[in-house]
This record gives sequence, structure tokens and C-alpha cells, in this order.
Amino acid sequence: MKPVILIQTDFSLSWSAVAQMKGVMKQVDPELEIVDLCHDIKTFDPWEASLSLQATEPYWPKGTIFVSVVDPGVGTARRACAARLKDGMIIITPDNGSLTHLLHSVGVEQVREIDESINRYPAKERVSVFHGRDLFGYCAARLAAGVISFEEVGPEYPVSEIVECEEYRIEPVVRNHYAQGFILTGVKHFGGISLNVTNQDFQNTAISYGDNTEVTITYQGRTCFHQTMPFVHSFGEVPKGAALLYEGSSGYLSIDLNQGNFMEEYGIGCGKEWTVTIQKGE
Amino acid sequence: MKPVILIQTDFSLSWSAVAQMKGVMKQVDPELEIVDLCHDIKTFDPWEASLSLQATEPYWPKGTIFVSVVDPGVGTARRACAARLKDGMIIITPDNGSLTHLLHSVGVEQVREIDESINRYPAKERVSVFHGRDLFGYCAARLAAGVISFEEVGPEYPVSEIVECEEYRIEPVVRNHYAQGFILTGVKHFGGISLNVTNQDFQNTAISYGDNTEVTITYQGRTCFHQTMPFVHSFGEVPKGAALLYEGSSGYLSIDLNQGNFMEEYGIGCGKEWTVTIQKGE
Amino acid sequence: MKPVILIQTDFSLSWSAVAQMKGVMKQVDPELEIVDLCHDIKTFDPWEASLSLQATEPYWPKGTIFVSVVDPGVGTARRACAARLKDGMIIITPDNGSLTHLLHSVGVEQVREIDESINRYPAKERVSVFHGRDLFGYCAARLAAGVISFEEVGPEYPVSEIVECEEYRIEPVVRNHYAQGFILTGVKHFGGISLNVTNQDFQNTAISYGDNTEVTITYQGRTCFHQTMPFVHSFGEVPKGAALLYEGSSGYLSIDLNQGNFMEEYGIGCGKEWTVTIQKGE
Repeated sequence: MKPVILIQTDFSLSWSAVAQMKGVMKQVDPELEIVDLCHDIKTFDPWEASLSLQATEPYWPKGTIFVSVVDPGVGTARRACAARLKDGMIIITPDNGSLTHLLHSVGVEQVREIDESINRYPAKERVSVFHGRDLFGYCAARLAAGVISFEEVGPEYPVSEIVECEEYRIEPVVRNHYAQGFILTGVKHFGGISLNVTNQDFQNTAISYGDNTEVTITYQGRTCFHQTMPFVHSFGEVPKGAALLYEGSSGYLSIDLNQGNFMEEYGIGCGKEWTVTIQKGE
Repeated sequence: MKPVILIQTDFSLSWSAVAQMKGVMKQVDPELEIVDLCHDIKTFDPWEASLSLQATEPYWPKGTIFVSVVDPGVGTARRACAARLKDGMIIITPDNGSLTHLLHSVGVEQVREIDESINRYPAKERVSVFHGRDLFGYCAARLAAGVISFEEVGPEYPVSEIVECEEYRIEPVVRNHYAQGFILTGVKHFGGISLNVTNQDFQNTAISYGDNTEVTITYQGRTCFHQTMPFVHSFGEVPKGAALLYEGSSGYLSIDLNQGNFMEEYGIGCGKEWTVTIQKGE
Repeated sequence: MKPVILIQTDFSLSWSAVAQMKGVMKQVDPELEIVDLCHDIKTFDPWEASLSLQATEPYWPKGTIFVSVVDPGVGTARRACAARLKDGMIIITPDNGSLTHLLHSVGVEQVREIDESINRYPAKERVSVFHGRDLFGYCAARLAAGVISFEEVGPEYPVSEIVECEEYRIEPVVRNHYAQGFILTGVKHFGGISLNVTNQDFQNTAISYGDNTEVTITYQGRTCFHQTMPFVHSFGEVPKGAALLYEGSSGYLSIDLNQGNFMEEYGIGCGKEWTVTIQKGE
């Protein structure tokens, strides 16, 4: 059975771009199964692309091929690459930080630069702006269809040269009854935020389910949120509208309101300027 | 041939949640076909989930498995269930009102509570907030793949215990030349509204295609719309921008503007506080 | 292998309409593969539908069946048709201008009016407003499944009777070092605009990659943008935030900002009232 191709982009579904990509893939092999991961990654933001890949990758069958096209550098010398992870997944993406989280969590076994002379869609028109369709998508389809092997993607280069987002280097502080990190990302639709503190890390605080915590959020050093909230398993354990601290479904410690939108309610954004401090309460 | 799985949620497609659900399903069986019903159900609103299921269910082949995850009560004692309808469809959902309309229109033959000890995704991490992925989706995939039978979902409970939305009990008034109901739902994108008066019911008014009607809308008793509009087959029978009364495609009597947005134009919302009265005009 | 069906509509994905269409298709043949082209075509706008079909059609395997439902005239005498293009693609659509661009670029070999007496979904309820589900989708499925031949769609009518959008007749002016056209369409998500000057046409200006150009945009004759920008291959060749002129991925000359939103930044819209003049600069 051929591997499924999963596509994520910052194109949105509001125009035909994604359907054009799928058409090129189906021309390579009409049997390919192509699934949308998400097309609303924040535009031009490899950090969000990287987090979204990390959140989704563990839930797909081994061998799945992920195509990620968040590509602010289209038309520059940034590499177009295919990375084979240590668990057998393949990620095809501009090498611009989109591999940051998977590089550290799963690990990259081998990375190759896509050879445009053989793995680029032979379009009739000269067009240089749509690598998602003409390069990344086309190469992924050839790989999934078995037209090329992973080695035939193009020349290998050292894993150590993979580009990483600098925010990744900011380490959280986790100790007994205390954790401090920044807001990694937020889901605007529901309003929850995730910290750069993993659920795993947080166990080192010895804060347990049911404990109260004091949560303080600062933006560029200025406090904009301070509240007591419990650390619980799930939303239903606090009243409607109340804040909770919980283990997020993507592996990161999270904060939200039960049936409310935390980001909107308190004007919270995301990024490294937003610091969250959690202390065990009374 | 295995049944198709149709997913509806209030997650939106703006992040990776739905793709994570699909991955877990594909791990159960890579051959499963999974189709999106809609992921923009109003957040935390089982009433909208219930109406959307009812609108879509009649158009799918018998045996289709619907997964509906609009789950304000995640983390509470609400039941997670699978219902087999009298026409052979299966609905997997939190039992929180999401079955209201199908219970009365099609009827439920049997309902079972999902046994988490066998039908829950064996995740590596402890996560309690994403039942859509770890419970509802996983259980649906096992059923569609034939890994478990309907009986193996979990213990049966009485159909009479299925939770219903209370709005359902508000009955419309329909008599000769007259109908009164509330605004069941609206499609914000186009602006049309549907009443809790079925197309079928409306035939009892003896109002015929081409008749004029006086339509009055009140919100909490205060009149906010009053206009004469014809009862017609379709949009093209009234001028551009004019209002029309017509038989909606989901089975409910509807009002909209031809090539316009009725809800936006007149500030109309939906819910039981909005009463619509229709009288046969001159 | 059965042809894929590609659907585009102005329904949005925010309610169950598209899933209802897919259900009816799956009832015809559960093996059909149905892919979303785009469901955010500007509401009631056959011009946008036509451009989107033209942009996507070249990238799909020959024989693909496109269903386009942007249908402001539902309920009027407008024809429901199936057109077989000269390259073997089939387009099923209201004949309301949605075929304009493909008619001229690829050409229509034969067009037939859908015979509602045989190619309309035999619904239980009387509903006249959802031709996307009951007529266009159902007919496409029967064709893709091989239930009917192209001839059995309904009676043929002359290709010369196909309805065209009048904007199509506005010709661009292209001569040495000069091009003038109007704004054909824009992608709001990214903010780029396309002119009714094809990439091919623009070669007749003898403006070359790297040349500077003077770009002036007027709305109803009033100048609202005037700037020098280079004609380049791709975004990365200008600084972040700077404007560029480039060959668009759908075949039309385009303008955008590198990692910015041109339409938003300068208040630019689209349509024939917006004139763009390009002159070779110093």
C-alpha cells in the first residue's frame, strides 16, 4: 500500500492553490491518497509549521509523507529538502525552521536537497513562485508513488545543517512547585495557549492533579494576567468560564477557559515576549 | 466495502486537530475513507450539531458512520455513546443533545456507552482533553474497520435516557393560512434562516406557491422585521435583493434574500427568543 | 479507473451543504473519489468561478470531472449544462458565465443541457433551491460512475450559445515597454492581484527579468497607487515588504508584496474599474 501524503500550508483553502497541488500529485499517480493537515498555518511562519508537524506526526501510520509549504523564502537560496525521521516518517519542506521541533523530538536520520533538474513539475509556462505545487508536491508524489526512491530526491547534506528557529533555544525553567516558560503557540479558534513546558517536564514540579496554582503572564516584562487556577485533567472539572491548567493534547502544558476563549478574554498573544510563571498555590 | 466515516466537530480546520483524528483512524485501518462533514459547528453547541447531523444523514449511503464531536462536557460524567438509527446509520457522539433531531425523525434502534477500557486510543502521553481523537474517532475507526462489532462498543442503555435539547419541545403552531415558530438555525455565510416548521407541516397552512405572505419576526417579544414576501419554489422568482419564503433544502421552512444576506441585512439572529409569524397575505 | 470529481462552490465549508452533495454522489457509487477544489468562490460571482476553473484545470489528469456551483440564477431559466472541453475534461455547471475562460483558453468541444427528468436526484421532499446537490452533483456522479454516457446528460446545444461574462471582452493593451489592463482577481488571503494580461502577452513588452517598471493603479480614473517595482522571477528577489511584478502561477501577470499583503496595504480591490498601467522604468 502506498503511503498517504499529508499537506500543510499557509495558503488557506479560500482559493485554488491546494487543489492545483493535488492535481499535480494525481497526475503523477491517480491512486495516491492525499489528506489535508491544515492550510491555515500563520502566513510566512516556519515556527508554527514546525509545531503543527510535531503535533500531528505521532498520530499517523509509519511511512506517511508530510508536505509542509510555509515558505517566506521562495526565490531565495534556502534549501528545498526531504527529511527522513528516525521513526520512518518523511517530511518534505523548505529547510527554513519547519523541521525544528521534529529534529529534536523524533530526530532526523537523513536529509536530502531536492534536485530541481529531475523532481520539478515540467510546467508549460515559466512560473517561479509556486514551489508548493511545482516542487514540494510533485516530489512528494513521485516518492509516494514509488517513481523515485528517497535517495533519488537529490544529494544528501549533513543533518547538522538543518535550519532551526532560534526561539527553540529558549529553555523553560522547571523545578519543585515552579515552572516558567513562554507561550509557544495558541489556538485562536478556542483560545487556549501552550507553553514551552512539556507535560512530561511539568511532572518535575511535583504539582499534582487538583492542586491550585498561581499563574502570572507578562508581556515584555509587564504583568497582564495573574490568577489562581487548578491543575486538572480536563475542562469539565472547573465551572463554565473558569481558567484551568492542563496537559495539552499536543504534549505541552496548556491554559484555557472552560467553554470560553482565554486568549480573547484576557488579550493574550503568543511568542517569546510572553512569559508564563506557574507556582504551586495554597 | 467498509463504511465511510463522516466527521463533524466544532474544532475548525485552522489547526491540526482534525488531522490528528484522521491519523488515529488510519492507524486502525489505512483503508478507511474519512470525509469531513463540517468543522465549523458553533462551538460548544449540541443543538447545532444535532441539526447538522439531521440535515446530512439522509443523503449518505446506509451504514455510514458519523462521528460528531461538539463536547462542552469533556471531562464530566456525560456519556460517550454510539447510536444505531432505525435506518442503519451509526452516530458516535457525546450524549449531550447532539442526537435530539435524529432521535425524533429517524429514530434510534439501540444506543451503547463507549467502553473506554477497550475503545480508547492507547496514547503514550496522559491526555484527557481530546476525546474526539482518543475516544470517538478511535472507536468509530474500529467499528468501520470491523475490529469490533456494534455490540462491542460497550454496554447498552435505554434509548429513553438519551439526552435531548430542551428547545426541541417548543412546538410550532400551524393552521389554515397561518404558521408560527422560532428560528431554528441560520446559515451565516448566505444569511438564510430556517424555522422549526417543517416543509411538510407548512403544507397544512394551505398557503400555495405564488401566494403572498405577511412575515413578522420578533426578538423577545419586540418586532424587528415585518414584510410581505411571496412563498416560492426558488430564489430566481423574486427580484435581486428581495425576500422570499421557500422550502429549505434541509426540510425546514426558510426565509432569505435573493442574492443577499437576510440575517445581516436585518440584524436577525437565531434561537428560541426569535419568533416568526407567517400569515397568508392579500 | 473512474475519473475524480472536483467540486467548487460558493457555499463555504461552514455548514453541511458540501457534505450533502458528497453523500448524494456516494449513493450513486461509493467508489467515487471526490476532491474539494474550493468552496470560497465569491458568492454569486460566475466570473470568479470561471477564473478558478481555468487556474486549476490544467493541473489535473485528463478526464477529470469538475462540478462548479456558483448559481445566482437558481430557479430561473438559466441552463444547467455539462461541457466537454477540447482536452477531454468535463465541466458541470450552470451556464451563467462560469465557462468563460476555459471556453477561450482550452475550448469547448460539446455542450449539453442536463435533462432533469433523468439526471435529477429523486428526493423524498420537494426542494427547488439546492441544484448543487440534486442536479449538478448527482449528474456528475452518474457520469463519473459510468451510469450514463456524456450523450445521456441531455440534449446538445450550440457552443456559440454558451453564456460569457462581459468583462472578458475588455482587452489589455500590450506594446513595447508598456502594458495596461484591469485587475482580474485578487487572492485576499495573501493580497496579490492578477491582471488581464497573461504572462505570455507580457513577453511582448520586451520588459525582462530584473528591469524596473513604473506601476500606476487607478480606480474609476483616480490614481490610487504609483510606485517603481522590479519585474522578477519570485518574491525572495525583493526586500521584505517591497512590491514586485511577477509571472503569476495561474498564467496572469501579478503584483504583490514580499511577505506582505498588497491589497490590504494599499486598499486595492478588483474588477474592471481598477486599471493597472505598467511602463518600463529607468
